[in-house]
Order: sequence, then structure tokens, then C-alpha cells
Amino acid sequence: MEGGRRGGRKARAARTVAAGPVQRPFAQPRLGWEPTRGVSDDELEAIHRASLLVLRDVGIDVLHAGARKLLASEGADAVDDEPRVRFDPDMVTELIDHAPPEFTLHARNPDHDLRMGGDAIAFGAVASAPNVSGRGRPRHPGTHEDFQGLVQLSQFLNAVHFHGGYPVEPIDLHPSVRHLHATFDLLTMSDKAIHAYSLGRQRSLDCLEMTRIALGLTDDELDGKPSVFSVINTSSPLRLDTPMIEGIIELSARNQPIVITPFTLAGAMAPVTLAGALVQQNAEALAGIALTQAVRRGAPVIYGGFTSNVDMQSGSPAFGTPEFLRAALVGGQLARRYHVPYRSSNVNAANSLDPQAAYESMFSLWGAVMGGANMIMHAAGWMEGGLCASFEKMVLDAELLQMVEAALEPVIVDDATLALEAIADVGPGGHFFGTDHTQERYRTAFHAPMLSDWRNFESWVEADSPTADRKAAELVDEFVGAHTDPPIDSDTREELAAFVDRRVAEGGVATDF
Amino acid sequence: MEGGRRGGRKARAARTVAAGPVQRPFAQPRLGWEPTRGVSDDELEAIHRASLLVLRDVGIDVLHAGARKLLASEGADAVDDEPRVRFDPDMVTELIDHAPPEFTLHARNPDHDLRMGGDAIAFGAVASAPNVSGRGRPRHPGTHEDFQGLVQLSQFLNAVHFHGGYPVEPIDLHPSVRHLHATFDLLTMSDKAIHAYSLGRQRSLDCLEMTRIALGLTDDELDGKPSVFSVINTSSPLRLDTPMIEGIIELSARNQPIVITPFTLAGAMAPVTLAGALVQQNAEALAGIALTQAVRRGAPVIYGGFTSNVDMQSGSPAFGTPEFLRAALVGGQLARRYHVPYRSSNVNAANSLDPQAAYESMFSLWGAVMGGANMIMHAAGWMEGGLCASFEKMVLDAELLQMVEAALEPVIVDDATLALEAIADVGPGGHFFGTDHTQERYRTAFHAPMLSDWRNFESWVEADSPTADRKAAELVDEFVGAHTDPPIDSDTREELAAFVDRRVAEGGVATDF
Repeated sequence: MEGGRRGGRKARAARTVAAGPVQRPFAQPRLGWEPTRGVSDDELEAIHRASLLVLRDVGIDVLHAGARKLLASEGADAVDDEPRVRFDPDMVTELIDHAPPEFTLHARNPDHDLRMGGDAIAFGAVASAPNVSGRGRPRHPGTHEDFQGLVQLSQFLNAVHFHGGYPVEPIDLHPSVRHLHATFDLLTMSDKAIHAYSLGRQRSLDCLEMTRIALGLTDDELDGKPSVFSVINTSSPLRLDTPMIEGIIELSARNQPIVITPFTLAGAMAPVTLAGALVQQNAEALAGIALTQAVRRGAPVIYGGFTSNVDMQSGSPAFGTPEFLRAALVGGQLARRYHVPYRSSNVNAANSLDPQAAYESMFSLWGAVMGGANMIMHAAGWMEGGLCASFEKMVLDAELLQMVEAALEPVIVDDATLALEAIADVGPGGHFFGTDHTQERYRTAFHAPMLSDWRNFESWVEADSPTADRKAAELVDEFVGAHTDPPIDSDTREELAAFVDRRVAEGGVATDF
Repeated sequence: MEGGRRGGRKARAARTVAAGPVQRPFAQPRLGWEPTRGVSDDELEAIHRASLLVLRDVGIDVLHAGARKLLASEGADAVDDEPRVRFDPDMVTELIDHAPPEFTLHARNPDHDLRMGGDAIAFGAVASAPNVSGRGRPRHPGTHEDFQGLVQLSQFLNAVHFHGGYPVEPIDLHPSVRHLHATFDLLTMSDKAIHAYSLGRQRSLDCLEMTRIALGLTDDELDGKPSVFSVINTSSPLRLDTPMIEGIIELSARNQPIVITPFTLAGAMAPVTLAGALVQQNAEALAGIALTQAVRRGAPVIYGGFTSNVDMQSGSPAFGTPEFLRAALVGGQLARRYHVPYRSSNVNAANSLDPQAAYESMFSLWGAVMGGANMIMHAAGWMEGGLCASFEKMVLDAELLQMVEAALEPVIVDDATLALEAIADVGPGGHFFGTDHTQERYRTAFHAPMLSDWRNFESWVEADSPTADRKAAELVDEFVGAHTDPPIDSDTREELAAFVDRRVAEGGVATDF
């Protein structure tokens, strides 16, 4: 009878290891495995060629006269008073060739610097959710307090490598000054790499300046050190909006990373066929990447894939679907074809921390990781297709991410691990627990979960039947309670605070509301 | 702001498709992608060589004099009155070379025949659990009624391709006649391929005869048509027990498939290092495969991998872990090295249908599928490390399996799917829902879930916040209620019943309890 829990009794005597969840250290996993190819090389070329035809024959609406002028100077077909820009294929491929295959995204704490590209993977916190759930409160629109709590939790969790933006929108901060307070929190409550929203020129400049201050850099030094990135969503289909273009212009000029991410939902803003949605994703991504290189040759840029589908019954977007997984694989092939780092996401459409939230997330991680993603956005805490950030989901995702990190550790094959001596010593019918080979290694031999409960049913019931969602809620309280702001030079902190004070006094960025 | 549920409103008008879960048709998915290699080719050879050394220098305890004699006649080092058999490496590789790389496992309904090997994948129902949960009853030891319910659900779910054994042990059927009643149910309530437990010679003979009757074959025809398989678990470390060997002898002689599956829990019955546990798994698997070929050259046999680890804190076995995933990948490399089909599993250690059950299962499916598994045992319904079969988990797993099936569908890349015309027609800023390209395809364009709820939070709350576990419970009732026994020739059914009656009257198989 297979699969019973045999053989554990002797080992049970070994309850010498301290209980309680132990995090893995902060470290970027590396994909030692070959990425999975979702289409053949010929099919990939067909998608590539089709997207160049879209750029040449249909073009992109570029809602920024300066950008149109810049692209025209590179050889694109653009006229001053019309948004449409048509791209010469050779110009596009020549421009994207300048994008670096790899770069380092710097953090305030150099230990949290991140390699972007190659086989390196980085996990980001949930970003841009309007609502928040968890910590015993019903789901509600995000506040500054929620924002700070999620920043603290992101800082505490080693599996979260960078901030993808605002984990939740702090709607009680007025939009004219929100970026100032939020960026101050990100740079002081955390020392991990940060993101700046592309919401117009002045906000980008403010975030660049705050990053410069926090990292203790001169202007020139910042230009040589990618330290704050911005995600640029195309307005699919085939449109680049003004604030997004301003973000590209400001950040690429300063050599800061841009992540071009078309949000191509098949059946809505993109063709209903996966190949067609990928053609459009690729056309939009290439246009954006080309623009970054037109702004500054060699500026760091990441190819973002976010193709998923809508539910044709309800019209709702769906995430963590088979379509998402396959698109994530092909997106990676396209990014590698262009020798630029690749961004994907950990997504799901669940409305509660139920099995759906878990299996859709793990399924999208399967696609993102095997697709060769270097940057995985929304890796921790994203729910409801992006409409809600969840404290509990952030801890649950950290568990998933640590499983991925452990799985990606190389299997060590050498004389010691092949264990021929131990196998011979134990022999048929024996047990390995008492052997030196085991005793020397058992404390660190296996991945230790934060949430997964491996007790048998009876012990688990005795412990009041803790489910993973309940345990996640308990850990949220423990982890947020354990957070302390990472050290920061007091002069630097004062300079940051003074900058925020001054800019707030100036009214921040004028809004008409 | 990325990730909001944009663009769905227009599509929402299209609620013309009938609601309610729709299953995918019964069909084996194929792994069009390259399997993932968990170790390099050199490392694989090191594991291979080490396992041959174990077989040569340590050997295996073979608890069956006839089998020892047979192996000795092939050149193994065995003496009559001692269990230990040492295997000459050349003998092992010569024998396993006779195992067929692919074969068909036949079912009573030819539409449910399964290809085993190559890139084909087959999903099996949970097997051998002592306990059962679901259908509104608390977890309890399995009964004949539970057994029948799970057989019916396995028959109803298209994502379940075969029976892996008894989904739950029907403990109210006396062991002397249990195999007769259970096999009768499997062959009449279902028409999918079945498994026979290796619990001694007579039970194997009874199951072979019942399979022969059910499939309407002569003895000779059965010999040419693999139609009932048996999983052989080695008694790790390094031991083959008597009933298991009897199963190999009876089934291999009749050309019926054997699945050799060492149950190598690292840290307990196998070395604490993954490489060492794989060496032992491989040694045990090769010994078992060699024995099948000693019994009958060319008999179908499958390489089973089940290496996982124990939790060194509690001593409990852990499943769906990073260690399991990596071992599943390397197991597939080993099976492909020997050109035999590969078996893996969908496993988890959760005690309830919580997020853990979902993410551990999806994680183990990631390992099994990317490892190139042809046969995935326990694919639907397995919980608690094998100690419980769950009706609800079976439906939840069917959802996961259908996601995998859909993800493995090739991305079609041709002029129609590249959608250049549709992209040009819609143009920048447009919407694809109304286009002919979409309208012609939207009904079948995307995977439709059975469980996943993609409504927005407000609609979901309005619908009483249905979680995936609750929806699974509702579907269990619906599906079991919808089951009808598949057609069977009345003479065949009578012959089967008469056989069972006669063998029951004879007392079945004598037991001493």
C-alpha cells in the first residue's frame, strides 16, 4: 500500500530544532534549468515578423509631440500634429540592439542590489492595488497606514526582493503630494530597491531626486547607477499615453530602468487568439523599448509580458490561467530573442485566500519561472486581478516564493551526497536516521516551510486545525510586529525629510482636483 | 496603474454562453515542451553509475526464492537460502534494454485506452488511502460505499484517465474477498483502465481473469494486450517483499504493466541528501525493472519516482516540497535514460482543502509534468500524504489537471491566429470584442474553469462569497449524482458476477484474520 506515512517514527525523536517559521536568507534565485519554450523557433520568428509588420503598417499612437519628434529623428514615420507613428523594422531592431542584456538595480542597502537579466530572478511586492485586506479588517480602500504596513511586511520578508510600486494606493494622501510621502516611506521603512510611477515629469523628477539623496549619490553617480525603475504600461491596443512617455523620457535619460509592459488581455484589448495577442504585446513592447533607446542608447530596459485573457462569459479578466502560463513562456522567448531582461508576474483572480488564490498563483509562477522571467512583479500580495492587496496573501506568497527558491537550488552531486557509504552501512531493511551521514546534515538538509503543516491529521486537529490561511494571518501580525526600520544615516534621513517638506510646502505637483 | 480589471465592460454584454461547469473532453495531454533537466548529463551519469555500484556491492534483499533463482539464472549473485542478491551491472543494463519504451494500457472502453510513454501523459485517481473525507461527512475510515462513490466520481471526471487502485480501502469488505468486489465495481461502474494490487499470487490471478472477462478477451489475447497494471513499491531501503515479487511474476508473465516505485523518503528510508536518495531510488527501480524483464523479455514496465523527504522537525513525511519537485525532474531524466515510461505523482500533505492542499499539489504537478512523467498517480483526490482520499479534493484536482491540459495545448501560430488583419482593423485605442475575428472564436478561445471564480469582489460577495473549496463540495454532489454506469454487455456483466460469486463462495483468498 503506497503512500502511507511510513518511516517517520524514529525521526520524530529528533524534535531538537527550534520551532517557528524560519525565513530563507535574502538571495536572488537563479534558473539553472533551461527555460521552457512555448513555441518553436520558427513560430517565434513568425510572431516577431508579424509584430514588425504591425509597427510598420499600423503603427502606434504616441501621445507626446517630443517623443514623436525623437522617433522621427531616428527614422520613424511621424508627423507633428498626428499621434500615429509608424516604425521602420530596421530602425526598431537597430535601436533595441542597444538595450543592455543585464544590469544591476541598486537598492539603498547594497546587500539588496538586484541583478536583472541572465538567469537571475527577483521577486517584487504587490503594486498599485486600490483596495487592501487583512489584519482582521474587512476589505477597504487603501490608506497611508495600510500602505506603511505592507511596506514594512515587504521589508521583513526576505522572499520579497524589491518594491513594485505602492503596494496599495494610500488614498488619504492627496495625489499632489502622495508620491513624496510614499517614496519617503519606501526609502526609510525599507532599504530594498524601489519603483517610481510615471505620472508626469515632475513626479519622476521628485522620485529621482529622493532616490539620489537616499543612496547618497551625486547626480552624475545616479546616472551611472540604475536605482529606481518605472513600469510603463502601454495603453493597449497600440497606444503610448503622455504620462508614460514622460516617464520614459525622464528615467531613460538618467539611465534608470524602464519596464515596458503591454497589458494585452486577449479578447478585449488584444486579439482573442494567443498568437495574435502576443504579436500585439510584442509590437507594443518593441515600440516602448525602441523609445527608451532613442532617448538614451544603452539605457536599461526590461521586456514586460502581461498577456492574459478575459472570461468570455463574464467579461472579467482572468489570471493564472493556461493562457497566461503559455503567454509567459512565449514572452520569455521573445525577450531572450532581443537580449533584454524579462518581466512576468504572480497573478490570480481570487477574491479570498482560498485554494483558487493558491493554485492560480502557483500556476502563474510556473509560467513566469519556466518562462525565464528575471523580474517577477506582484510576486507577493496580489489578489482579485490586481484590485486588492492582501497582507495574508503576501505571507502565503512568500511561502510559495521560498518553495520556488529552494526548488531552484542546484542538486549537489558529489561523492558525499551520492552517499554510497551510508547506503552500504544501512543496508537492506535499515533506517537512515541514526547514521552520521544524516546526523551531520539533517538540520539544513530540507526546505523548512513557514506555513505548510505536515503534522498528521490527529495532531493537526489537536492543534485546533490550523489552515494555511489562518496561519498566514497569524504570521502577518508576528511579522509586522517584528519589523524595525532598517538603519539610515541621520543626515540622509534629514535631507530626505527636508526635501519632502519643501516640496509639500510648494504644493507638490499641481492637480486639478 | 497596472493590473486593474480594465476593458471587461463591453465583453460583459456577451453573457450568451450557458453557465455551469463544462469539462474538457477525455484526452491525454502531451508534453510538447522539453522536459526540464534537474541535473546535468554528467551528474545524471554519476547517479546512474552509483546505483549500479549499490546493486553490485550492496545488493537487494529479494524475499522470494523463485525470483532469486530466476535472477541467478540471468547472472546475478544469489544463493538459495539467503535473501541478498547482488546484481552484475552489465546484466542489469542488458535486461532493462528489453523494456519497451512505449505501450498502450487498454481499458474496457477503447476510447479510454492510454498511451504510456513518449510525450503522452495520463492522470490517475487517488489510490490506497485508508481514510476518506467529503460529502458532508467527517473524515472516517473508508467503506464500500465511499469506495463506490469515488469510483463513480473518477469515472465522471474526464481529467481522471485511469484508476490507480482502490481510491479508498473499503474496510467493510473482508480482505479475503475485497479484491473481487472492488475489481467488479471498477470494471462495471467504470470503463477506464484499472490497477490490481500485488497482494499474493491468487489475487493477481483473480484480477487478471476478471480483466480478461471484462474486456472480452481470450487468455492469449490478454497476453498481447496490457489491460491491468500493478504498482510495485520496493520496501526501501533495498528490499523487494514477497507479495510484490509475486505480483511481478504473475503480471509480467502475462505481459501486463508493472510500475516499479521505490518509496524513498530522504532522511528516513533513504539518504538525507537528494542525490543519495536518487541513487537508492534508481538502484531499487533498476532491480525491479530487471526482474520484470527476467520474467518476460519485453513485458511493459514503468519507472516510478516517489522520492520526497521527511520533516526533520516532526518526522512526518512531506510532499509537494522543493525536494519532491527536484527529485521528480531527475527521476524523469533517469527514466528517459533507460527508455522506459516514467511515473510521478500529484501529492500534498495538507489536512484540509486549504491553500496548502492547492499549492503543494500544483507544485508537485509542476515537477511531475516538467519532469516528463507519462503516468501521474494520485492525480486527483490524494491528501494528507496518502492517508486520506477526498471527494472535494478530487474535484479541485480535476480543475488543476484541466488547467495543465489546457496549458499543454500547442499555441497555434498561423496567419489566422497572428491576427494581423484584426489588429489593423481595430487600430490604436480600439476594442477587439466586436470584431469578426473575436466573434468567430470567443466561445472556445479560452480555457473555462470548473471552480475558479473570476467575478469581481462585489458580485462574488453578492453570490454569498463562494470559495473554491465550497464550490468543489457542491460539484461533488452534482457529479456523483450525475454518474451513470457506463454500458456493458449483459453477458459480460453476468460472467463477471458469476466469477465473483464463485470465488466468494470458495472463500476468496484465505487470510489468517
